[in-house]
Amino acid sequence: MSMIVQKFGGTSLESAEKIHRAARRAIRAKLGGHRVVLVVSAMGKSTDQLLTLASAVCHDPPKRELDVLLTTGEQVSIALVAMAIHSAGHEAISLTATQLGLVTDSSHMRARIQRISRERIDRELEEGRIVIVAGFQGTDPGGEITTLGRGASDTTAAALAAVLGATVCEIYTDVDGVYTSDPRIVPQATKIDELAYDVMLEMAATGAGVMHSRAIEFGKKFHVPIHVRSSLTDAKGTMIMAETSGMEAISVQGVTLKEDLAVISLNAVPNHRGVAARIFAEIARNHVLVDDIVQNIYDHGKLANLGFSTNASDAAEAKTVCEKIATELGIGSVEVDEGVCKISAVGIGMRTHSGIASTMFEALSKADINIENISTSEIVISCIVRQDDGPEALRRLHTAFGLDAKSNGGEGA
Amino acid sequence: MSMIVQKFGGTSLESAEKIHRAARRAIRAKLGGHRVVLVVSAMGKSTDQLLTLASAVCHDPPKRELDVLLTTGEQVSIALVAMAIHSAGHEAISLTATQLGLVTDSSHMRARIQRISRERIDRELEEGRIVIVAGFQGTDPGGEITTLGRGASDTTAAALAAVLGATVCEIYTDVDGVYTSDPRIVPQATKIDELAYDVMLEMAATGAGVMHSRAIEFGKKFHVPIHVRSSLTDAKGTMIMAETSGMEAISVQGVTLKEDLAVISLNAVPNHRGVAARIFAEIARNHVLVDDIVQNIYDHGKLANLGFSTNASDAAEAKTVCEKIATELGIGSVEVDEGVCKISAVGIGMRTHSGIASTMFEALSKADINIENISTSEIVISCIVRQDDGPEALRRLHTAFGLDAKSNGGEGA
Repeated sequence: MSMIVQKFGGTSLESAEKIHRAARRAIRAKLGGHRVVLVVSAMGKSTDQLLTLASAVCHDPPKRELDVLLTTGEQVSIALVAMAIHSAGHEAISLTATQLGLVTDSSHMRARIQRISRERIDRELEEGRIVIVAGFQGTDPGGEITTLGRGASDTTAAALAAVLGATVCEIYTDVDGVYTSDPRIVPQATKIDELAYDVMLEMAATGAGVMHSRAIEFGKKFHVPIHVRSSLTDAKGTMIMAETSGMEAISVQGVTLKEDLAVISLNAVPNHRGVAARIFAEIARNHVLVDDIVQNIYDHGKLANLGFSTNASDAAEAKTVCEKIATELGIGSVEVDEGVCKISAVGIGMRTHSGIASTMFEALSKADINIENISTSEIVISCIVRQDDGPEALRRLHTAFGLDAKSNGGEGA
Repeated sequence: MSMIVQKFGGTSLESAEKIHRAARRAIRAKLGGHRVVLVVSAMGKSTDQLLTLASAVCHDPPKRELDVLLTTGEQVSIALVAMAIHSAGHEAISLTATQLGLVTDSSHMRARIQRISRERIDRELEEGRIVIVAGFQGTDPGGEITTLGRGASDTTAAALAAVLGATVCEIYTDVDGVYTSDPRIVPQATKIDELAYDVMLEMAATGAGVMHSRAIEFGKKFHVPIHVRSSLTDAKGTMIMAETSGMEAISVQGVTLKEDLAVISLNAVPNHRGVAARIFAEIARNHVLVDDIVQNIYDHGKLANLGFSTNASDAAEAKTVCEKIATELGIGSVEVDEGVCKISAVGIGMRTHSGIASTMFEALSKADINIENISTSEIVISCIVRQDDGPEALRRLHTAFGLDAKSNGGEGA
């Protein structure tokens, strides 16, 4: 009998009506002959409400206690979903991470899954029950309560799907799939039917917020297709899966925008071995998150310009760290460029299609948008532009790469 | 080093400010040289809110899932109280029933404690931490989540105090102790300084709502004094403890009122062995809660009148059950007397003081209050009167037994 893992996010569980809707979907899959495991998040905004409570009693709450607090949100959801399935006349059982045996390391607020026991879940499925698992939470080997980081119920679902050998991990959300770009900025954006794991990972990393990256990594590693779809309709969403030959026929599958960045440029860096390592070790030690890194050498390889992007909120800290190192290492100067954003084109087909980069630069040039940094990888090209230019740049690239809604799709602007 | 268990109820934790107040009280006890274990309830009305959520998704929720749901309330409280203690610069750790090792039987919604492990709690106390335990919850031997019944955080506290050999179990609440009567009805009521376990048990059973009976039973069984006191002031409350000789000097310690009762009378019951057993077995099978039972025989012991009181809401059900049995057993008639209440006088001294009953009957007679049923035990005399007469009866008895506030106490009417 085939196994399906269905994950419902907070917005898909924010009311009694929506909880019943999730319950009906699980029951339908069960009646369709599948074994069904649900993974659920906390209802609506309840995690934020719990965080507000915490900050009202403590400015710097111990992470251990935050985990004890926050995991109650998912525990409420599992009980209510089990009750809703029960009220529809079907058998269901809720399981906390402790009851399931989802063991993590002991890093509170950002624990990593170490192992998941099949024993209890198999026993309940064997009894004909729908099993509802609390997402986001774990338990360390000593019985301490942990959480996997915000948004990590996706990760719980994908990991469970991997362990259970599920045929698919369905992620139910308030959008109907992954889009070629952000529809709030690019009205012509269309839903993508199939997407390779790597492309989804790059799209997530460059600004597409629909999925948690660790979930996609689990799917990729354990060959579990992930179906991102709407909790409100029965329409097919986006299937994230292993590459197929058909995918390469499309050059670019999505264009993404990551806003509120800053670029730090270190100019005239002595190009010795270990210099970059020294710089980024110091930056990591100060907990500055680095986005892309680009370096060019000049002066016959003696000097380099080294730039990296970071969140705007980290810019001041990054500058302080770099200036300190600059003095030590004899670096020419440190400049900070704020108010920028990154636009990226992502797709497997880019490997084999030539001219993607030039199409991108030409589209931006025609729109009078100046490109600051450029970085490329196998399946991504990213350009840093002024923040104000971001939305228009995104729309221009969407059109230039032929992603606008086809007129025969009935969705044209 | 002496150990103190402090229990804080929902009203004592309903805001960040009150949580800090509870934290400060625990810290003060710690700084006073004690080992401190806190037991906490769910914040304010949160248990009711969770029940409302449950009834919105399911008319008849499985008890197992209700327990999964409801225990989140106490889990929120333990985390927040631990954070509040932390923010005041002291070490604290929260423990769920599973983490603590509070094992119950598997009766969801009304589980009984089987054993409590000291290991974890001792380890944390040894590290100098204040330990915060979730009240009301347990875990069965199979790891299922259970609850001990509404209001049972008191029971958790008393049981922990017993296991840990605490010198006192402090119950912090929104009143400043146990009163000689309900101050809303009897303005002259005064706080009682010391009360024997048995008297408190009888007072709770006859209408004083301040404490959970099972908690008092634990205190009695394991010789743990229970101090009921206000969470808002430092005033001494009421100490519930083993009998002292001083207690017997006072004839009656409290008068209580239990409203909304009905009396079911079975008249001309053939007085054979097993008849009463047959009747009350059938009543229990129909989940009718029976309060007091009185029986008189007549006709040279051949017949009896058998009466019992029950909650008004159970009266119709009780009548139906009794009428069915009446036919089977050849009982003369079944009558239901609704709109009645029970007034009781409670005190250890009643054993040794004569004339308590006559004082009671005389006081009611002088007030033109008619007595229906009467029942007595070692330390209680109860009379059933019309519901409308209840408050006045209570005030008259309070005065008659010399319980009115002394003029030198500054609280006189």
